[in-house]
Amino acid sequence: MNKPGYFITIEGPEGAGKTTAIEQLMTQLQPLGIEAVLTREPGGIEIAEKIREVILNKNHTAMDGRTEALLYAAARRQHLVEKVLPALHQGKVVLCDRFIDSSLAYQGHARGLGIDEVLSINEFAIQDTWPDLTLLFDVSPEIGLQRIAANSGREQNRLDMEKLPFHQKVYEGYQEVSRRYPDRIVRIDAVKEPEEVVADALAAIIKGMESYTA
Amino acid sequence: MNKPGYFITIEGPEGAGKTTAIEQLMTQLQPLGIEAVLTREPGGIEIAEKIREVILNKNHTAMDGRTEALLYAAARRQHLVEKVLPALHQGKVVLCDRFIDSSLAYQGHARGLGIDEVLSINEFAIQDTWPDLTLLFDVSPEIGLQRIAANSGREQNRLDMEKLPFHQKVYEGYQEVSRRYPDRIVRIDAVKEPEEVVADALAAIIKGMESYTA
Repeated sequence: MNKPGYFITIEGPEGAGKTTAIEQLMTQLQPLGIEAVLTREPGGIEIAEKIREVILNKNHTAMDGRTEALLYAAARRQHLVEKVLPALHQGKVVLCDRFIDSSLAYQGHARGLGIDEVLSINEFAIQDTWPDLTLLFDVSPEIGLQRIAANSGREQNRLDMEKLPFHQKVYEGYQEVSRRYPDRIVRIDAVKEPEEVVADALAAIIKGMESYTA
Repeated sequence: MNKPGYFITIEGPEGAGKTTAIEQLMTQLQPLGIEAVLTREPGGIEIAEKIREVILNKNHTAMDGRTEALLYAAARRQHLVEKVLPALHQGKVVLCDRFIDSSLAYQGHARGLGIDEVLSINEFAIQDTWPDLTLLFDVSPEIGLQRIAANSGREQNRLDMEKLPFHQKVYEGYQEVSRRYPDRIVRIDAVKEPEEVVADALAAIIKGMESYTA
């Protein structure tokens, strides 16, 4: 699957400020002449939305961790095929809020399924469409949780209700994934002020795209 | 996952007469003092049913083959955890109409995703719960299709509408899977008369259980 576009994923634990930063990034990419598409799974893709409904249904308390991981991989595949790949083939920059590394950190490490095992089903899902660049928004679990608690306007979800030990495991998971893919994953210090975080992320994107097209 | 029960799967292409034979088998196991549970995916498991609805929804024409394979693996996992494993742990014999080999033959070989690749996601799904015995109902694709056409009372499904070349590929897929697992998979000549097929299947089950408990 060769592609002329550039595929960026944004990763990080809850409360890392990803969502706000991505919106700012989109605004700042446009004047640079970079046509970017912003998406996140399930991304309005009907099949992926239906899969997500099965995952998030509150009646599905009996859902096994491996079932959940396979469903995330299925939704990822469909979103990739219907939305990400067509944009990349049109030469666009795609910014995707969470992708494979979320599954490796959350299901693989934090839920204890094993990073290698979760990687295997996700490799089946993405084939060779690895991100060209991944920005890992790095914030300690303690600060991340404080931010979530302080931000009452943000919709709370099931993961927000998990306790600190789980968030610590997610953090560890991301560190492990980061060590595995040092060339692809760039750490962004997300404890900084929001404008600095966006500036750092933008610089990393520009640097990544330069070395990609060089 | 050690288990005191005995796990039997029944496999074969469309029109092999599996469904009718399984009902007869269940009737004949009881007088032998063998307490068997009959099931098939999604097996009344709510989460697995919901996943199956996503797979079979006729509006989902954009569904990618890999998405479908991941969804089948997810439904399999949940059915295994909620229905098959509890019965096995109670020491029961479980007869499951289709299991992992269906995915290997249909998605892996016939749909061209690759048997090894489909195997990898299904190994994630089943972990070490391989069937103790698999009966492969062997009938040529031509005869299988003739039987389907003759049996107007049977509900037609999407796969029935596939053309002969697809059924031939499914047949090839089963042959390949059979070669890979010669100790587990026992071929049952399903071209024989129904009573003979059931007798052969019963003999294979009794032989398998004897060598299992010996």
